[in-house]
Amino acid sequence: MAKALTPRSESYSQWYNDLVIKADLAENSAVRGCMVIKPYGYAIWEKMQSVLDRMFKDTGHENAYFPIFIPKSFFSKEADHVEGFAKECAVVTHYRLMNDPDGNGVVVDPDAKLEEELIVRPTSETIIWNTYKNWIQSYRDLPIKCNQWANVVRWEMRTRLFLRTAEFLWQEGHTAHSTKEEALEETETMINIYADFAEKYMGVPVLKGFKSANERFAGALETLCIEALMQDGKALQAGTSHFLGQNFAKAFDVKFANKEGKEDFVWATSWGVSTRLMGALIMAHSDDNGLVLPPKLAPIQVVIVPIFRKPEELAKIKEAASGLISKLRDKGIDVKFDDNDNKKPGWKFAEYELKGVPVRLAMGPRDLENGTVELARRDTLSKEVLPLEGIDEEIVSLLDEIQENIFQKALDFRAESTVSVDTYEEFKAQLDKGGFIMAHWDGTPETEQKIKDETKATIRCILMDQTEEEGVCIYSGQPSKKRVVFARAY
Amino acid sequence: MAKALTPRSESYSQWYNDLVIKADLAENSAVRGCMVIKPYGYAIWEKMQSVLDRMFKDTGHENAYFPIFIPKSFFSKEADHVEGFAKECAVVTHYRLMNDPDGNGVVVDPDAKLEEELIVRPTSETIIWNTYKNWIQSYRDLPIKCNQWANVVRWEMRTRLFLRTAEFLWQEGHTAHSTKEEALEETETMINIYADFAEKYMGVPVLKGFKSANERFAGALETLCIEALMQDGKALQAGTSHFLGQNFAKAFDVKFANKEGKEDFVWATSWGVSTRLMGALIMAHSDDNGLVLPPKLAPIQVVIVPIFRKPEELAKIKEAASGLISKLRDKGIDVKFDDNDNKKPGWKFAEYELKGVPVRLAMGPRDLENGTVELARRDTLSKEVLPLEGIDEEIVSLLDEIQENIFQKALDFRAESTVSVDTYEEFKAQLDKGGFIMAHWDGTPETEQKIKDETKATIRCILMDQTEEEGVCIYSGQPSKKRVVFARAY
Repeated sequence: MAKALTPRSESYSQWYNDLVIKADLAENSAVRGCMVIKPYGYAIWEKMQSVLDRMFKDTGHENAYFPIFIPKSFFSKEADHVEGFAKECAVVTHYRLMNDPDGNGVVVDPDAKLEEELIVRPTSETIIWNTYKNWIQSYRDLPIKCNQWANVVRWEMRTRLFLRTAEFLWQEGHTAHSTKEEALEETETMINIYADFAEKYMGVPVLKGFKSANERFAGALETLCIEALMQDGKALQAGTSHFLGQNFAKAFDVKFANKEGKEDFVWATSWGVSTRLMGALIMAHSDDNGLVLPPKLAPIQVVIVPIFRKPEELAKIKEAASGLISKLRDKGIDVKFDDNDNKKPGWKFAEYELKGVPVRLAMGPRDLENGTVELARRDTLSKEVLPLEGIDEEIVSLLDEIQENIFQKALDFRAESTVSVDTYEEFKAQLDKGGFIMAHWDGTPETEQKIKDETKATIRCILMDQTEEEGVCIYSGQPSKKRVVFARAY
Repeated sequence: MAKALTPRSESYSQWYNDLVIKADLAENSAVRGCMVIKPYGYAIWEKMQSVLDRMFKDTGHENAYFPIFIPKSFFSKEADHVEGFAKECAVVTHYRLMNDPDGNGVVVDPDAKLEEELIVRPTSETIIWNTYKNWIQSYRDLPIKCNQWANVVRWEMRTRLFLRTAEFLWQEGHTAHSTKEEALEETETMINIYADFAEKYMGVPVLKGFKSANERFAGALETLCIEALMQDGKALQAGTSHFLGQNFAKAFDVKFANKEGKEDFVWATSWGVSTRLMGALIMAHSDDNGLVLPPKLAPIQVVIVPIFRKPEELAKIKEAASGLISKLRDKGIDVKFDDNDNKKPGWKFAEYELKGVPVRLAMGPRDLENGTVELARRDTLSKEVLPLEGIDEEIVSLLDEIQENIFQKALDFRAESTVSVDTYEEFKAQLDKGGFIMAHWDGTPETEQKIKDETKATIRCILMDQTEEEGVCIYSGQPSKKRVVFARAY
């Protein structure tokens, strides 16, 4: 087969790159760091979007759209935010091209310089809070719970498809509240939605916790995150939800009159997930044969491959399959019948394995005679011959079983890959094996930074439900009341 | 009522601006020419997207995503395209900001100048055909039928919400074919989809036709369009579908081996509709009380306003309404029960009229006693009291009736506003009354330009199904075989 992937054991990173390209998910474009998301990859993203969008709306959020450009001066208004975001970004300085006087195509028209440069949004807190200022006068105007699906740009130096690209797609929620409590509750609601989505749809178990101060979003008082573990033992931050306090309200002077008629600044949250989730999905489950997709996000959930030599055989198989296809579609299952006669069945089997289709059915003339069908599962790579009669019901429950199995496998892997250590020596030895490491930390940014500099490990999160226990920091020996989660991360 | 609109008779243009703002559809942002699409406006756009996306997929198209940035040199590759598009656009010249050495916020880092400037896409033919080059080797790789939902930027000098903004949202389809015939067929398929969407969902009748050479898309051999008529008698181009021939394949060297193994350039189409459709929707139907939305695109299709003084009354009305609400929701109807007790019923009635909700129900204590409900139609502003029993079925057919009525009204208006003229004097007199004018034209760009310069009227299209007849050009007196459609346009 031409499409063989580099095995994970040889190079996990090359395996990932091979897989993204060969499964037709995405590719690099002519523009440095910007990717093209190909139709098959985009179809997975659309399924993700559709589920998330429903979850957002069910919790009272509405979609809206804010400008892609942000005036440069907006970034300077929130002191922490400017440090984090107004650095590596795309800057629009001119608004016109003109024919090159020397006849070489087009050049920037020097007369069309903007008075103030515009930044292509790396995140939209500033432009949105500048807008909210006009929407909010009294507590009656609150809460505002907007989400936008958009593209954003961060000028990354080293990029990798889906994981870190200059332009990426995401959703960003921005909410405004009249009380601190309500904003904190929203921050937590959203991280719970992300965790549910990751676990129930992507089949990826996640840890939920707080970021340490060093890793917090620039401008947030508290950042909640979900952290997933990839097969190579590295962690991946899959979503964040920020409690922004009154920082942006103060920066953009957004006040409201409360029930007592007293003025106060508005409380804020923001939260987002991006096409980075595609990277998490790919790396969490897939194998050396290709993608393994959870049925709930698979663009094709069942593929039927007819085995035939003559057109008459194909016609008969098509007829026999048509009833099954309509039954499955009636149950909301995405089915493809692949009667392309340019490709041999063996090629197709490999192709659908590469593409991660959860269930593959093969039907040949002998199956027609016997009233059977061959069913192959992508997750276990097992095959069996089953009666065609009733196979639709079988498939419905099988898709659930596969969804559950994929999640359980990832959960088992995480359990095996999570250890507690009590000394820095143990910590360093364990790091090379990968996985999540539960260790005591003295709570200071300085210690965290030193550990990072020496080992490349970061605090992924401080678990929301971590029980307290007495201990000493693995690095400084200072007292600690809680273990935190360390790992090397994407 | 505080939200009164400027009447159309006083100033149609001010009425439109008032309506967009007061119905919470969109507003201007802090960035010149860029709009904020507010939740209610965005909800209408989402309904449009959802229908169109289904229509595209049903005709074999797939979604994908291409970079927002296009290298400047790409625009120079197709000679006509560069003239049309590489002029008023946002140019990214730098990729980093730094702290101002003088301590005043952030400034552009002069060391971070891009080697080649990047253009924020005004349309994506160039970057997409540069990508397709790698996807296409043989006829087996064709057709490719991709669509993308994206934001684009054209640096317009005079902007109006939805109608003409620097940034707007749209979809752009880009297809690649092995034969000219297939590409022509695709061009026509897509304009038919747009026309169906406009008429069956937006309730806006449209003319389908070819653009004259002057009005063609830059780089197209043929542009098909749909043209709608607004209530002020001006035309609005609502969608276009372009037959691009082999122009972009030649510009980006995209060849394929045909069945006989011979190399040829690939044939192309592109087509798009944008948030401009929102402008068309608003202007085609709405009145001095506010929006009139066709039920198929209304975010709220039915609103129920309880009339009550005491909480006990509200509780009883709520209970009586709950059965109706579930029945309507089961039928897929979007219903809102507005029990906000900060606002009086009269205020709510005006508000939902302003927002264009097709059906409004009012239920008070007397209705409970009598088993009735008051039903008001937004399109006719008529009211009647009906039995609550069976009202759900009534509403289902009423929504269809309203959809049809809105379309018919617009169709009648267009019929009244379409006239044939045979002299330039008649033409000019008619222009001031507005509407579509059917007139003979000699077929030359020069004549078209002169008419435009003298009257501001343009050829909106040459109808696809226009019957031939002998005549003479209203301007030059030269012979003509067909009338074409003139109008002043948005």
